[in-house]
Amino acid sequence: MAMALPLGGGDAERKVKVAEVALRALLCGLGALAAALVATDTQTRTFFSLQKKASYTDMKAMVFLVAATAAAAGYSLLQLAARCCVALLPSSSGSPGGGMVPGRALAWCVFSCDQALAYVLLAAVAAALQASVVAKRGQPEMQWMAICALYGAFCRQAGAGVASAVAAGLAAALIAFLSAFNLFRLYGGTKS
Amino acid sequence: MAMALPLGGGDAERKVKVAEVALRALLCGLGALAAALVATDTQTRTFFSLQKKASYTDMKAMVFLVAATAAAAGYSLLQLAARCCVALLPSSSGSPGGGMVPGRALAWCVFSCDQALAYVLLAAVAAALQASVVAKRGQPEMQWMAICALYGAFCRQAGAGVASAVAAGLAAALIAFLSAFNLFRLYGGTKS
Repeated sequence: MAMALPLGGGDAERKVKVAEVALRALLCGLGALAAALVATDTQTRTFFSLQKKASYTDMKAMVFLVAATAAAAGYSLLQLAARCCVALLPSSSGSPGGGMVPGRALAWCVFSCDQALAYVLLAAVAAALQASVVAKRGQPEMQWMAICALYGAFCRQAGAGVASAVAAGLAAALIAFLSAFNLFRLYGGTKS
Repeated sequence: MAMALPLGGGDAERKVKVAEVALRALLCGLGALAAALVATDTQTRTFFSLQKKASYTDMKAMVFLVAATAAAAGYSLLQLAARCCVALLPSSSGSPGGGMVPGRALAWCVFSCDQALAYVLLAAVAAALQASVVAKRGQPEMQWMAICALYGAFCRQAGAGVASAVAAGLAAALIAFLSAFNLFRLYGGTKS
């Protein structure tokens, strides 16, 4: 295990970096898609000359989901922009762990933000998923009706939004894991 | 920072260990309490000679919460038992990082389990909280009624269960953070 580090260290580090940037781009895209799908979701129907409009603001869980996914997309975009700036700066590359390593404080900060984002996004997705299942199937024991029978198009679009939010949540969990890895490397880098 | 480690290393390590054991005991107690409170929660009421019974199985989110909190309590109990066994074994203590340190593989395993537990518990708590808010306030736009107006005692007990589940989720997140710390220490231990 310790043998593989000096040989494949730089290569593995590059792979982790590429994976992280790809995951952050994915999270940005999925978060923006989920927020846009849910936030633009409305349907108006007429029941016996009475116009009723379904909107995502009717469900608090969906409002929370829009806020969380939009925040995730914005944060990922900021992170990507920061990484671009760092990559464009003249750096003493080629010596992993030696040259311009980001400080531990920065790694801790990124780690904390990523963890918090993963927790908040997961909580928002779980709450939205719960609300969606009730909206789809109803809960007859509680006299909660399945509103998807009335607002089909509204529910389909919300379902697509929740699905991309689930994928964004998985990406956020993977990013939290990778930034934990990045933090470990700073502490283990003095070994080789 | 590196100066403080050789002097306060053993002391800080003991504090982290005590905090971790205390948090695990807390998680075990809170998880068991939440599972017991929600799982034993029923109320029967008679409406116009029609008997209706409210039970936690009426709400899928509550079933998920009971499963997650019970799993958290069981896992914490196992961890505490394992720690007791390790503490009772004759160990070469006094040399932090030198003697019988638990392997990295074990630390990774504990870290992964703690992370997974924190995510699952948080998702369960978020879903249950969403369902509870709807049950308490209703969602008039969706024609979902506030069933707490009918089943007051049922709702109060479920609320207490959800509150202890929220506390258990916070404890699980702190434990996940501490076990990440424990993993870092194994990688940073060769410094001093």
